[in-house]
Amino acid sequence: MKQSYNQYKQGSRRRQHNKQRQPQRSNVSLRIIPLGGQEEVGRNMTVFEYGNDIIILDMGLQFPEEDMPGIDYIIPNTTYLRGKEKRIRAVVFSHGHLDHIGAAPILLQQLGYPLVIGRPLTIALIKNRLEDFSRGAVAQLKSQQIKTLNNSFRFGPFTVRFFQVDHSIMDAVGVIVQTPSGTVIHPGDWTYEKNPIGRKAITYRHLSSLPRPTLLMLESLGAIAPHARTPERTMYQNLENLIRQARGRVIIGTFSSQLERIRQIIEYAQRIDKKVALDGYSMRMNVEVAKQLGYIKAGKKTLIPINQIHNFPDRRIVVLCTGAQGEGNAVLSRIVSGDHRFVKIKRDDTIVFSSSVIPGNERTVQRLKDNLYRLCDNVIHTDIMEVHSGGHSNAEDIVELLRQIQPTYFLPVYANHYMLKEAGKLAVRHGFNQKNIAILDNGSVLELRNREMKVLPKKVPTDHVFVDGLGVGDVSNVVLRDRQLLAKDGIFIVIVTIEGRTGRLVGDPDITTHGFIQPRENQELIENVRRKVKKILRDGNPRTGADEPYIKNQIRDKIGQYLFTKTERRPMVLPVVIEV
Amino acid sequence: MKQSYNQYKQGSRRRQHNKQRQPQRSNVSLRIIPLGGQEEVGRNMTVFEYGNDIIILDMGLQFPEEDMPGIDYIIPNTTYLRGKEKRIRAVVFSHGHLDHIGAAPILLQQLGYPLVIGRPLTIALIKNRLEDFSRGAVAQLKSQQIKTLNNSFRFGPFTVRFFQVDHSIMDAVGVIVQTPSGTVIHPGDWTYEKNPIGRKAITYRHLSSLPRPTLLMLESLGAIAPHARTPERTMYQNLENLIRQARGRVIIGTFSSQLERIRQIIEYAQRIDKKVALDGYSMRMNVEVAKQLGYIKAGKKTLIPINQIHNFPDRRIVVLCTGAQGEGNAVLSRIVSGDHRFVKIKRDDTIVFSSSVIPGNERTVQRLKDNLYRLCDNVIHTDIMEVHSGGHSNAEDIVELLRQIQPTYFLPVYANHYMLKEAGKLAVRHGFNQKNIAILDNGSVLELRNREMKVLPKKVPTDHVFVDGLGVGDVSNVVLRDRQLLAKDGIFIVIVTIEGRTGRLVGDPDITTHGFIQPRENQELIENVRRKVKKILRDGNPRTGADEPYIKNQIRDKIGQYLFTKTERRPMVLPVVIEV
Repeated sequence: MKQSYNQYKQGSRRRQHNKQRQPQRSNVSLRIIPLGGQEEVGRNMTVFEYGNDIIILDMGLQFPEEDMPGIDYIIPNTTYLRGKEKRIRAVVFSHGHLDHIGAAPILLQQLGYPLVIGRPLTIALIKNRLEDFSRGAVAQLKSQQIKTLNNSFRFGPFTVRFFQVDHSIMDAVGVIVQTPSGTVIHPGDWTYEKNPIGRKAITYRHLSSLPRPTLLMLESLGAIAPHARTPERTMYQNLENLIRQARGRVIIGTFSSQLERIRQIIEYAQRIDKKVALDGYSMRMNVEVAKQLGYIKAGKKTLIPINQIHNFPDRRIVVLCTGAQGEGNAVLSRIVSGDHRFVKIKRDDTIVFSSSVIPGNERTVQRLKDNLYRLCDNVIHTDIMEVHSGGHSNAEDIVELLRQIQPTYFLPVYANHYMLKEAGKLAVRHGFNQKNIAILDNGSVLELRNREMKVLPKKVPTDHVFVDGLGVGDVSNVVLRDRQLLAKDGIFIVIVTIEGRTGRLVGDPDITTHGFIQPRENQELIENVRRKVKKILRDGNPRTGADEPYIKNQIRDKIGQYLFTKTERRPMVLPVVIEV
Repeated sequence: MKQSYNQYKQGSRRRQHNKQRQPQRSNVSLRIIPLGGQEEVGRNMTVFEYGNDIIILDMGLQFPEEDMPGIDYIIPNTTYLRGKEKRIRAVVFSHGHLDHIGAAPILLQQLGYPLVIGRPLTIALIKNRLEDFSRGAVAQLKSQQIKTLNNSFRFGPFTVRFFQVDHSIMDAVGVIVQTPSGTVIHPGDWTYEKNPIGRKAITYRHLSSLPRPTLLMLESLGAIAPHARTPERTMYQNLENLIRQARGRVIIGTFSSQLERIRQIIEYAQRIDKKVALDGYSMRMNVEVAKQLGYIKAGKKTLIPINQIHNFPDRRIVVLCTGAQGEGNAVLSRIVSGDHRFVKIKRDDTIVFSSSVIPGNERTVQRLKDNLYRLCDNVIHTDIMEVHSGGHSNAEDIVELLRQIQPTYFLPVYANHYMLKEAGKLAVRHGFNQKNIAILDNGSVLELRNREMKVLPKKVPTDHVFVDGLGVGDVSNVVLRDRQLLAKDGIFIVIVTIEGRTGRLVGDPDITTHGFIQPRENQELIENVRRKVKKILRDGNPRTGADEPYIKNQIRDKIGQYLFTKTERRPMVLPVVIEV
């Protein structure tokens, strides 16, 4: 970081002067719309529009936050694309992680199955996901493979090209979208290995000579990660030492998305003649796909089914499984709780968490570790050894990419707004011009016309589209608010049967409650409520007969108030009035 | 860390030889029982029992986890002390943080108000909490102040003494509990400032000459925190620079428990003639208590009410407030959402998060930062500047304390089981004898008799005692499971009115649902359920008349199954049968 960004820039101006084809003045503009990713702007989906033509980058999903109980996942809102389906020339997928392909089954269907472009593993994983979602859906898919990184595709005014990036899954690509208005450079998810294993370090300098103006859309999570990332070399050395030296079994919990790491572990185990058993649906599925493509080279002698681990001595066994986040039903949790059919923890097993903790999972992971430490003497995790290396960049890497690529415009993306702002500040501190930086939100429309970049005043819709079970978008905010309310203090149901003609109560009010108190231990409270309900019905205006809405309101208000006074809780009070 | 622990130990053996009074052989034993703190063993409460006498250390509360919706907090389970109330000689409070005093109002009452011992600020904060909980309760309190750290108290076989520790609140003390069987040394919550401001660094060497055997109960969170803590000196320099150089207002969000930091900020602002406005109930209350005791020296000229900040130029205003965790209703959130009566964010305000992010709050804090960055150009947090210093130790500090104190036994506490295990390993790596280390759980009973330490086979009860509104312990696991269930997929209520004699349906089944689907948009589904319910009632055995339990079971099973097939959701299905 010694040479300043400005020095680089000067060099670049000269190069620009030589190579640059000046775009023609035009009334057509390039529009860039980050369309999905909740707080992480654009991570799940980005739309590029030029005149009448549209290209989409990725169709990913987001996992729900804690205040979204019951929701399976969230997908990008495609309201903006409704009626424009025919204009979609292609959907380009950068890599096979769920936050980039997970919404494909639903969105491809919604948009009438436009052409899909991706590297072989990415396409294979999309196909798998389509089939998982709905048997036979893959027959609808129109796809074209990016066979080599030199392939380029023309879609009307768009030329799409690719470049190599480092990420934690094979076949991750950076994407170049060239238009008459300018060139977008988008590394997608990326990290920067300065000293990689078995290949040359990637450089991005060649991207500085693309036709100008260039816009660099750069994942900027790293803007607030000043600490050095664990280099893959360190991580693999640690993992290999652990696997080699273990006297018992080695059980490694990791993300099934870390397919590159999974490959390295399997191939290392094969080299030192250990057996690898995979467990966890996504883990087995991902490895199967990668094997079919020849991306993971492991024979039947190395990869054994989990139910055969007992046929070999413990010191020859490596188990690779999911569940390092402490998810209740995942493999590692089942192993620890003793519910796994084939694996019970032994004291001299070595258990490795080759994973980070996803924010929100800290407590569950801590509990999982507590339980593991009770059973086993060798539990290894990132707090005590570098056995995980993140798939994303840090601040220094961002500066380095800006230096190498020297874009005309800088659009930090794929992170929270505040991180994007910090990425912008980082760029400015290293000599980038503030006015050539744009911070977008999901739904923002950035327009590039005649080298002028501007963010349009109106955003396109990006309200959450929740997927819950088979329902897509049918869980509204009302439903969600009810769930939150029910979670907090439960429900209190008051059922009264009345004579329709007179409004007079028939029998005693029935009371049922869940998640509020134990009725059996609070009989006095329940009795008092019954008495109050009777009074409400007596005091109701008997001349007008049964006034159901009035009775319901009275019960809701008065009983709610009474319960709060007695308990300081606010269960949802639900009056049910039966007229006979 | 150059000199090995063994060298230290040899020196200590000589000292022991000179000073040690050999405890007499005895049938009476010292029992140590960590009694509360959920995953963090003993953090909320510890019981010391010698013969018939009991001393308690702290009565704190724990905040609930995400899977405990609606719960306000969790308090230690005192089942073990039931019937032993008269034998409790004293409750010693180490410092005034909620996880050490927060359960005092409930537990002191439960245990018949035993004598309370603590430093002046700690006692004052306990009194405040008692009054907050129930007006007039403070009249019941019997308390005795620790006037100086040289005070000692005799309670039958116990002698209780104190020593200085570094922590983030004034009047935090380490506690020594001496008995004929041995001496417990317990620093409570501690950190280790090597280069503190305005005072000498604390050393713990003097604790090595206490009567043996000595047991060091040591907060060991730091065992898995290998990184260096931000020293208070660095933090204060950064904070002071920010406050001094700000051209607009400075708004600092921090924990109200960080009373030492709050004092330093107020006193610094006073020195450079800025005004400080406090906001947030606990913030104002804590500062008021500290001021009354003379612990915070600030005149009316410095501390101004929040509604008067507009009477001064912005550059002279410092606002100290709560809510840096993004809690919806706390001050900082209200300021950001524009709901605060007196403070609206301006672009040139400086907003400082002088706080860490409590695990589980990451997302809310990120959203808060996102919103702040939209309004303000100067948002400062620990990702970009060292403006927070944790109140706890790290691995190096743990080793240092072991070296200085040279205890006979080491009991890591106040952390998750796996951290305690790692603290044990850390000690062993530095020369401590494995067999002199005990890892306890909450409820474990450690017995020390004739220099023999053993963990008894039976644990005492420590099941969660939940506080929810006015209820203490009345939210059972059943209620909690209902809340979790309701949160996930909501509730689906089917009301049928039947003729008691024949079991025949009267009218149409009524259906109400919350948190599951929007009924209006799913009328077909609702209609189908009605049809199915009618069929269930027709198929019920009409000869036997109304069989309510049978009908209810049928509705629960068949409708539950139907809803799952149609939606892949499992709402709680609640059948209500009204007989007329």
